Order: sequence, then structure tokens, then C-alpha cells
Amino acid sequence: MTPAGHRIPGRNALVHEARPASSGRALPDTQRGMRRRNLARVMHTVSAEGPLSRAAVASRIGLTRAAVSTLVDELVGAGLLRELGPERPGRAGRGRPGSALAVSDRGPAGIGAEIGVDHLAVCVTDLRGEVRVRVERHVANRGRSPGAVAGELTGLVREAVARSEGEGLRPAGLAVAVPGPVAPDGRTVVHAPNLGWRDADLGPLLPGDLPLVVDNEAHFGGLAELWLGTDTPRTFLHVSAGTGIGAAVVVDGHLLRGARGLAGELGHVPVRPDGPACGCGGRGCLEQYAGERAVLRAAGGEPDAREGLLAERAAAGDRAVRRALEGAGEALGIALTGAVNLFDPEAVVLGGALAALAPWLLPSLRKELDGRTAGRACPVSVSRLGPRGPLLGAAHSVVRALLDDPVGAAGRHA
Amino acid sequence: MTPAGHRIPGRNALVHEARPASSGRALPDTQRGMRRRNLARVMHTVSAEGPLSRAAVASRIGLTRAAVSTLVDELVGAGLLRELGPERPGRAGRGRPGSALAVSDRGPAGIGAEIGVDHLAVCVTDLRGEVRVRVERHVANRGRSPGAVAGELTGLVREAVARSEGEGLRPAGLAVAVPGPVAPDGRTVVHAPNLGWRDADLGPLLPGDLPLVVDNEAHFGGLAELWLGTDTPRTFLHVSAGTGIGAAVVVDGHLLRGARGLAGELGHVPVRPDGPACGCGGRGCLEQYAGERAVLRAAGGEPDAREGLLAERAAAGDRAVRRALEGAGEALGIALTGAVNLFDPEAVVLGGALAALAPWLLPSLRKELDGRTAGRACPVSVSRLGPRGPLLGAAHSVVRALLDDPVGAAGRHA
Repeated sequence: MTPAGHRIPGRNALVHEARPASSGRALPDTQRGMRRRNLARVMHTVSAEGPLSRAAVASRIGLTRAAVSTLVDELVGAGLLRELGPERPGRAGRGRPGSALAVSDRGPAGIGAEIGVDHLAVCVTDLRGEVRVRVERHVANRGRSPGAVAGELTGLVREAVARSEGEGLRPAGLAVAVPGPVAPDGRTVVHAPNLGWRDADLGPLLPGDLPLVVDNEAHFGGLAELWLGTDTPRTFLHVSAGTGIGAAVVVDGHLLRGARGLAGELGHVPVRPDGPACGCGGRGCLEQYAGERAVLRAAGGEPDAREGLLAERAAAGDRAVRRALEGAGEALGIALTGAVNLFDPEAVVLGGALAALAPWLLPSLRKELDGRTAGRACPVSVSRLGPRGPLLGAAHSVVRALLDDPVGAAGRHA
Repeated sequence: MTPAGHRIPGRNALVHEARPASSGRALPDTQRGMRRRNLARVMHTVSAEGPLSRAAVASRIGLTRAAVSTLVDELVGAGLLRELGPERPGRAGRGRPGSALAVSDRGPAGIGAEIGVDHLAVCVTDLRGEVRVRVERHVANRGRSPGAVAGELTGLVREAVARSEGEGLRPAGLAVAVPGPVAPDGRTVVHAPNLGWRDADLGPLLPGDLPLVVDNEAHFGGLAELWLGTDTPRTFLHVSAGTGIGAAVVVDGHLLRGARGLAGELGHVPVRPDGPACGCGGRGCLEQYAGERAVLRAAGGEPDAREGLLAERAAAGDRAVRRALEGAGEALGIALTGAVNLFDPEAVVLGGALAALAPWLLPSLRKELDGRTAGRACPVSVSRLGPRGPLLGAAHSVVRALLDDPVGAAGRHA
């Protein structure tokens, strides 16, 4: 489903793709590879700083004006860049007037999708990173088969694609966030305990006409924070919770995935080694203290309550829920002490459903974490993206792959 | 102390130096940078596969024979490569006969040094990675000032340099392993509790005529395993213990250092959150159960006993020590469960003093780790390098830096 030459979305930021320059056996740069990289540099430069004239792009990336013009013509022809006409007078002082370039608001686009325990969601994001179409449906997925869930999601994807085509967009890839770890093939859900799935290959179950990547919602949430967050450092730990608890470990802008795609399983870090048995086979895992069901149980509520209920009850002053969240914050603080000692991140960011619960989690979390890491304390902040993170991160990963390999995108669609 | 242009040893394998190819603002490859990389590729190729003819090197790195000859001439002139004379007849079938190239056994060399609680050690390693000189002294460093220890170490370094010069070697850099985390400046020991040091800048205290890098012995131990171990995977967790417990997290051949150089502090991962207070400010840290002093205490021995005593007593059948080591293995298994869930390494490797204790640690360690990570178990192996790892890793880091930047080495010494 991922044709050769297409850079798989969400796999571009991998540490395990970064090779030292001096590996000895690497082939010399081919002209083709060089042109590809230069097209990507033009796209990223205009994306980050546009609108820009061709001359401004040339000076920023250190190529001649003529070389940049050739690259720009190709990108404009492929519908990835557009010319806005002569620059505004206020900018003319920076160089001689020229036609300003901007990333296109039409053409190739990314589709993000999310399979949650209580919902399905799809969004289409244009090359500028703006969400143009969003489709969402509340649906109880717990215990449903992968085929049934993927079938319903496929319907939503078709609807979103049709609507985006009406706006002149051409979806170029689909990235799907799921609540659990995914194998290195980028398709097979290893284990999604809250759906009841194990080793579920979504590849054959989702639309076959779009390059596909499936990844842990915790990973997409962390990448969203990296790409779309405010003042997010380059080395951080993003902790998210839907029904389970997961984390994304980001080191200098690269997501760590682990040897089998299982990195970031913060929910199964032992907090109290003799604590309650966990579905993972362990005992006293973080999820047994800070997972949504554990907190609901501690607060004397229904373990299967809908998402968002805890934040509502805490905000309404429910003392049992607030006490339960205080305990969850403590357990998070203990598990994060281990993670901070192992990674030494610049910050811990609470995302997903934890963002909404932060007012009641943070005091006890910070007390444990700061008390146990005296002198090497790590700031804890709250994501602005919250539960929207994984869906935005998924769609954005496709857009980043398009910016990273505009040739592939042009080849597929021009 | 590290002149501009010299690649700092041990900093070459950093994840945070690997930038994505498409960062937009990077300058185009300069000729100088290209030549530097090609020199490094020739060095690494001959180092990994030599002796090789010029033609064989050219075919392996995809450059013309003429281009490779120019590079080789420069490397031979700088004393980094040597010509062995015509290839042996048995190899002539692979191409027309030519002078075989090998990495020099003279010329630039790396110095590794180690500051331990009970000893100081220095070794000089040639470009082929062979230890040519080794100087060691047993000395009680606990509570001694950084100046006194560094002064004594400087004497040993001078002695090792003099001896290596007698063998035609020219030490090109000094890497020092210390028992604790080091700041990102690569000179300042943040905290070495078993020496009693805090924020000790070793820069001004060590020889000023050699490029210097100071790093945590746990990091050098892990790098030694990566570079010199047998069948070591590219993504692994190396756990070492001298007096404290540290770890090196290696992800696809890159050591994770963390935002402040504090990554890998496995010894301060909470094992039992209400356990005994630890010197770090936490409670129930791994070091309180599996550190050498904790194990000696649990076995009813002197907490300040010399290194190696535990392995001797366990080997002699001392039941109290064996029981204490079983408890230490349990605590290691719990802490490693957290680390395996967070990193998903291909393997855990026990190194340093833990290697010698493995027979008594492993059964309980594996029982905890495997029991808590059912279905995603991680193999645990024992380093062949053992306590020699950090010293070898330090010296080897200088050699790797020389292979990575032979121009710099040639410029300094030709």
C-alpha cells in the first residue's frame, strides 16, 4: 500500500533513520538525491517563512537564483507552491520586487484519522497545515472487531476525501492513530487492550488507494506537540492518556520508537511492584493507579464511563474524583521520576485527556517528581492541543512527508 | 582545550547532532566538507575491512580510483594509513595487484583514562583499536579533592604518553571516564557521590596540551559495548555498576545523553516508592537495593569494602552475599521493567562490576523482568568487557573521532 519512493508519513522523524555521515559504505550523493533534497529545502523554507520571493528563498538556502527558479517552477507546476503576484511594497526593501511564493492551499493534502474507544475521527489538512475538513462520529468501539471498526472508518475517510476534493485538495496519504503500540511495519496494531485487539493488521482493512501509516496515538500526540505546540523543546516526554496511558519520547526532534515499535509504554512502568495485577502481565503498573478506569474505580464510579466524565466531575467539585486524581498524580510523579532519570528531557508535557485533568493531577504529580529529583528537576507543562493532538499529529505527519519529498508528491499527482 | 575543528571524542555518536536532511536553512555541501567526509569514509572502510587495495577501497565507497588515490596519498602522508606492499597472491584474483592499505599502527592514538573510587587507570590505543600502553594504580579516591585526583592522574597520563611515544605513537586526545554524570560541556562532573564531588570542572586540572573530554563511565561502558562487544545490537540498554549504578541508552548506535547530560541514571529509578532515603533526594531508588554498598549492607558486611569483594564471596559460596545479590537482581528486574517499557531495546547488557556478579543476579532479575513484560520480553546478556569497558570505551572514543575527522588529525600532526 505504500508504493516505493513514497516516504512513509510519520516515519521521517525516526532516530533509527539518522545515520552518521561517515558510515563508510554509503554511496556518494546522486544528482537525483540532491535535487530531491533541494526541492524539500525550498518547500520547508517557504512553509516556515513564506511568503517569500525567489531571491529570498535563494539567499536563505544558499543556492543561486537560477537554481532556485528551476526548483520553484517544478513545485509551482506540481501545485505545491503558488505565486501570489508581486510582493507587497512594505517588503520590497528586502530585495528587488518579485513574485512572492506561498505554500499552496490546494493540491496535495494529508488525511489523519483516529480510532478511539468512544469515537472515530478523520481530518484533512492542507500543505499549510490547516485543517480543512473534519468528520467525527461517536461510536462504542470496545470489543468491536478490527474489520467492523476499519470499515466504518473507511466510510468516514471517503466522505472526508470527497469533501476535500470539492475544495481543490488531493489527499496524498492516510495516517491512522490507534490506542496502542503498532509494529514496525506501520500497519499492525500489536495490542490495543481497550479495544480488545491483538496483532490486528489494518493494512487490508483500510482504503487501498492511499499510502497508509498506522501508529500509536501516543506517538502522534507527541509529534503534534513537537510540530504544532507552543515553545515545545526539542527533547521532551509527552504523556498522554485516552483510556490507557502512553508516552512519546522525543529526543532532539526525533521520536524514539524502540526496536519493536513498543517504546513509550509509560503506562506499564511499575509504580508499586507489589500492587494490583495489570492486563499486561505486570503488577502495580502506572495504569493501575492513573488510568481512567483505575481513577473511576478509586472514585467509586462506573469503570466504563464515557471519555471526559472525570474532568466534568472534578470541575463540578466532586471530592471523591478529586481525591482519586490526587492519587493518580502521585503515581504519575513516581513513574515520571523513573523516566526523567532515564531520559533527562527538557520538559514533560501532559497531553491527551490528561491535559483537561491537569488542575487536579499537577499538585501531587509535581510534589512527587520534584521531591524525588532534587537539583535536576524537570518542568511539567500542559499541552494546548489536548485530546485533538493525535488526530492533528496524524494528518500533519502526511503533510510533513509531502514537504520532505515533494518530488514524490509531484510524481504521483502532477 | 578542544581547538575548533577537532571533533570532540565521544560526542560523535550523539543523537542531538543528527539533523534531518531537510532542515531548510542548511548551507549546501562545501567542497571542504565533502573532502573531509570522503577522507573519513576511506579511513572507516580500511579500518573495518582492511587490508584493501586502492581499487577495492574505490569500489566500496563508489568513488573513482583517481579520487581515492588522492585521498589515500594524503592519509598515508599524515601517517594514518600505511602501505603494506603488493597484495598477497591469494587476494590478487579480486582485482589487479596493488599495494594493500592498512590502518597505521603508529602515528595518532587515543588516550583513555578512568577515575574510579579505588583506582586510576590510563591506556593508549592505536588507530587499529589495539591497546598499546596501560598504566594503573590502586588508590583510595573517596573524599579526595578533584585537584589531588586529577594531579595524580595527570602524572599517569604523562607516563603513558612517554611510553607510547617510544612506540612511535602520537596521542591526539584524552577521554576521561568518571563515576557520575557530566555536564554538556564535556568537562564538569555534575555529581560523583562516591567521590564526594559536585560541579567539579576537570578542564583546568588535566593536561592542557591535549583535546579533552570527560564523560560518565556508564556512557563510555555502553559505547565500548557498541564498538567492541560481540553481536551487540544497535539499540540496547547497557547497565553498569562500579560503586553506583548507571546505564547507557543506545538507540540505533547513538548514545542518548539527555538535555543536561543526565540521561541513563538508572540507579535513581524508584523501585519501591516508600523505600529507604537515597542520597539523590529520592526514596527507594534502585541504588538502595542493588548498589554495591546496599548489597554489602544486606549481606552484613562492611559498606566500604574494596571493589570485587562481592564476586569473590559469592563465588566462595557465601550464602548471605548470595541472598543479598538475589534481592539486588529482583530490584534490577523491577527498574529494568520500567526502562524496557520506555525504550523497547533489543537487549539489556549487564556490564561493569555487574558482569562478574551476573551468575547470582540473573535468575531473580530475569524472573522479575520476564514476569512483568510477558509477550514483549527483552533478552538480558552479560558483557565480555566487564569492568574494562569504560577505560576501553574512553580510549576508543578518541580513535573514532580520529577516523571521523582524519583531516583534523592530519592538520594537527602532519
